[in-house]
Amino acid sequence: MLIEVSHPERLQALRAELARIGVDGFLIPRGDEYLGEYVPPSGERLAWISGFTGSAGMAVVLAERAALFTDGRYTTQAEAQTDPALWERRHLIEEPPQEWLARHAARLRIGYDPWLHPQAAVERLGAGTTLVPLAANPLDAVWADRPAPPAAPAVPHPAAYAGRDSAAKREEAAATLRAAGEEAAVLADPHSLAWLLNLRGGDLEHTPLPLGFALLRADARVDLFLDPVKLSDATRAHLGNAVATHPPRALQGVLEGLAGQVVRVDPDITPLWFSATLQAAGATVKPGEDPCRLPRACKNPVEQQGARAAHRRDALALARFLAWFAAAAPAGGETEVSAAEHLLACRRALPLFRAESFPAISGAGENGAIIHYRATEASNRPIRANECYLIDSGGQFLDGTTDITRTLWTGPGTPPADLVERYTRVLQGHIALARLRFPQGVAGAHIDAIARAALWQAGLDYDHGTGHGIGSFLSVHEGPASISRAARPIPLREGMILSDEPGFYLPGHYGIRIENLLLVRGFQGLARPFLEFETLTLVPYERRLIDLGLLSPAERAWVDAYHARVLGEIGAELEPEVRGWLEGACAPL
Amino acid sequence: MLIEVSHPERLQALRAELARIGVDGFLIPRGDEYLGEYVPPSGERLAWISGFTGSAGMAVVLAERAALFTDGRYTTQAEAQTDPALWERRHLIEEPPQEWLARHAARLRIGYDPWLHPQAAVERLGAGTTLVPLAANPLDAVWADRPAPPAAPAVPHPAAYAGRDSAAKREEAAATLRAAGEEAAVLADPHSLAWLLNLRGGDLEHTPLPLGFALLRADARVDLFLDPVKLSDATRAHLGNAVATHPPRALQGVLEGLAGQVVRVDPDITPLWFSATLQAAGATVKPGEDPCRLPRACKNPVEQQGARAAHRRDALALARFLAWFAAAAPAGGETEVSAAEHLLACRRALPLFRAESFPAISGAGENGAIIHYRATEASNRPIRANECYLIDSGGQFLDGTTDITRTLWTGPGTPPADLVERYTRVLQGHIALARLRFPQGVAGAHIDAIARAALWQAGLDYDHGTGHGIGSFLSVHEGPASISRAARPIPLREGMILSDEPGFYLPGHYGIRIENLLLVRGFQGLARPFLEFETLTLVPYERRLIDLGLLSPAERAWVDAYHARVLGEIGAELEPEVRGWLEGACAPL
Repeated sequence: MLIEVSHPERLQALRAELARIGVDGFLIPRGDEYLGEYVPPSGERLAWISGFTGSAGMAVVLAERAALFTDGRYTTQAEAQTDPALWERRHLIEEPPQEWLARHAARLRIGYDPWLHPQAAVERLGAGTTLVPLAANPLDAVWADRPAPPAAPAVPHPAAYAGRDSAAKREEAAATLRAAGEEAAVLADPHSLAWLLNLRGGDLEHTPLPLGFALLRADARVDLFLDPVKLSDATRAHLGNAVATHPPRALQGVLEGLAGQVVRVDPDITPLWFSATLQAAGATVKPGEDPCRLPRACKNPVEQQGARAAHRRDALALARFLAWFAAAAPAGGETEVSAAEHLLACRRALPLFRAESFPAISGAGENGAIIHYRATEASNRPIRANECYLIDSGGQFLDGTTDITRTLWTGPGTPPADLVERYTRVLQGHIALARLRFPQGVAGAHIDAIARAALWQAGLDYDHGTGHGIGSFLSVHEGPASISRAARPIPLREGMILSDEPGFYLPGHYGIRIENLLLVRGFQGLARPFLEFETLTLVPYERRLIDLGLLSPAERAWVDAYHARVLGEIGAELEPEVRGWLEGACAPL
Repeated sequence: MLIEVSHPERLQALRAELARIGVDGFLIPRGDEYLGEYVPPSGERLAWISGFTGSAGMAVVLAERAALFTDGRYTTQAEAQTDPALWERRHLIEEPPQEWLARHAARLRIGYDPWLHPQAAVERLGAGTTLVPLAANPLDAVWADRPAPPAAPAVPHPAAYAGRDSAAKREEAAATLRAAGEEAAVLADPHSLAWLLNLRGGDLEHTPLPLGFALLRADARVDLFLDPVKLSDATRAHLGNAVATHPPRALQGVLEGLAGQVVRVDPDITPLWFSATLQAAGATVKPGEDPCRLPRACKNPVEQQGARAAHRRDALALARFLAWFAAAAPAGGETEVSAAEHLLACRRALPLFRAESFPAISGAGENGAIIHYRATEASNRPIRANECYLIDSGGQFLDGTTDITRTLWTGPGTPPADLVERYTRVLQGHIALARLRFPQGVAGAHIDAIARAALWQAGLDYDHGTGHGIGSFLSVHEGPASISRAARPIPLREGMILSDEPGFYLPGHYGIRIENLLLVRGFQGLARPFLEFETLTLVPYERRLIDLGLLSPAERAWVDAYHARVLGEIGAELEPEVRGWLEGACAPL
């Protein structure tokens, strides 16, 4: 990677604007007003000002100095993409912005855009300086060629995929407001309005969201704030009379109309602007969880069936890709980019496929050790014989979202013993989690260690969580549950879909990660209800990297049964050559 | 168990006293002013007023009604020991006192003794009523024949066992106060003063504590508040000039002398009286952890050596007991009480033994399923042939505290298959935890599931934590670390000693628990420091209850290696008959 952009004039223009409006500095987070993982080009403020294009980070611009904060995943990328003459590069965790601000801006007045930060973040950042909310974003004022916000159509998500009527969902969510004595709830997360209203959109490349906001009333009516160009008559008809649609500029007025009412606001996922506006209008802001967050995570039976179908379809693409790769990789001539494109082409041929659920991570050799690697024209690397190759990708299908990682040996030679041992330990952790049963009430934070114990035994570990939640034709990363020690312990529940993706990374050499998606389902224990996982992903593991001497009989039997299931579920739908490859890949170990 | 006491006149006297001092009710917790697990007879207020003798509970007495709150462990005992005409029995967790107070005492003024409740508890209890701190305890006023508080001598804990000089400990703890800008810390937990001053006592039956309070100053001096009769000249000489000794009545004056200073108080383990007194005097109370709590939990090398030696000695007593039991149990004629007495006699014969570390749990058949069972004259039950017997016991040795549980088959017949399967699953969890390695930073809450997974797989579980911390010739239950999902995640550290005690309980039939103590020690991982456990306990498992078909080869090898180690470490010190029994018990499976 090279320095792609260095725009001293942008920084200069921002500083002039800051001086004009009378603040000493400005905070530029990576997120936009929807606070999500992905932002449309119109929201790429951090990239515009700094050049850094990673998915997490924050910049602070003062009159004389500017700093970019990124986490460990992005240290190298931040250094490559930003101009050291303009930007100090800092570690987001080890020297967080609030400490830097306390050191360099303790007596200054630092502006921020209350649309771009949740309340908790503002409280944290304001610990060492004076933060000033700004009515208009000064960066937007100087961003002359800023792209227009996306305006893709919002379309109904058919009942055949959504599984539940929006009216029933609204009534259930509204009942939780009434039970809590609340008269409305802000839905600041577009995923929630998409789920609640059975609506999908195209405002982001990888997540089928219509970007907008909503307000749920205790009587189950909804106010939806969405650019009117996104709403066709058919979509308006789908929404029905209980959903009032408004242009985004009407939001403030509607919130002000809540004067005297009790309004639930989720402080973790809602821009501070909402609470500030409600409080100024005389409403009572009550912190509480977005009422759609948990029901959205627990997929209904139709969504569960959709997930199974989407994964069976996705498995066809993976089988075709892997059969192709088995021949192409040892021959040479392919690259990280060409392989990812081939996989995408396999997915594009499938019914109901809409988009990749995230930019594929296609890492050969040492690039596989970069956990959030993205192959670009600049970084693209040939895939060579006799090395490790990691491919983490997923699809957005109308009936479900997929996310799978496989680590492959390119061959034709024999893999080194240390690689085989480590792949096997990663697989053992992956299996241990997939097989686990546990009583209701157990959270992902409590079982993360199950997926690590085999690696830990050899003094090995990985620096990421074991699993994340996944939406239903929604985001590839979805809360509130996860399988991670770092997360708040949210008990797992029937219908949740989570990833199971332990790994091992040897920097400069190779990366291993094995990922399936798991559906949480019930299981009757002796004295109480238990839960267990149903594996949704149907793609064979890399048998050349498995050390049979390390696997227990039960682990080996599990792999054999899984492979038999893969072959049984998708074999008949594949072309003969691919089926032939799959039969070999799924033969008993 | 029968109703042992019903004293309506006590309740009547207390109510008259409440009326006299002008409050509508009174809270009677189980703990005394030291807030520990065990209380001396002078602190048994809850038992005196209600008859209930369990180790956790609370009573609320109003003018017309009175309620006793106990947790699930004690429901049966509370019903057996209290008079239903006098006491409503309530579940401490399902209907906590604050809810009961909100329902029955919302407009009343309820008194409490600020010496008997930590701050957090008062805040919780006061949610639904008006709580009034009382200057004198009205129950004490009517408890005519209240025993005198214990006054056993406080004696130096020799350097050969303590391993570190008190002056060095005081300097290190004081340094944490200086770093935090604090001028003193209240040490309300007698374990902390015992550890800090290398002092032990005899005020409780099972924990070698001198009951008292202390104040640590930022200059490393200590004020010790202890009944002067406990302090011999030799002990005073041991304490030295940097420790000022005061009678307990001097405490208030010394605290008032801290006016204008910043004083650390641990809100979880300090009676509210301390903060109230400090604040009234004009000191600034800063909530923070007792500075002795974490260093006390991390045993130094001498304490670690002591623990190993104590466990080797304790294992001799267990081997003698088990050899005797193997012959006595199938013959009949023994009881839960006689067996526990035999084990205690075996321990009493050992050098450095001082006391049981807790009242032994000796449960035959269905009594084994009562997790905190205590065999009494009333409950005592013969130990019969062909049943399950659970014995959980421990010793206080000058060089260390032990705690071990074994579950035995009395024979001579073959145990039923379901019992064998469940014992084996408990053992698998016990082994999985004992073998586990994990990176620094991992807490007990994160690995509790490791000990449960084998049971969970069969839909089984146990309703208690997997492990607790243990002191060094101190309490058998010691914080801050534990192995439990319910606990705050405190990272494990080198030198901590924790129990590993999964179980399974089939009410009305049998209870299984297997417990060893584990010492946390370092282990160098590939890229970071790891931790692992050293098993301290050296006593064979019940081989007749192990299903070899369920054990993995690694688990079987672990048991064989452990048994070989047991025989190697203690075999030579045993009498020939016992050694002969041990050789059989420790033969490869």
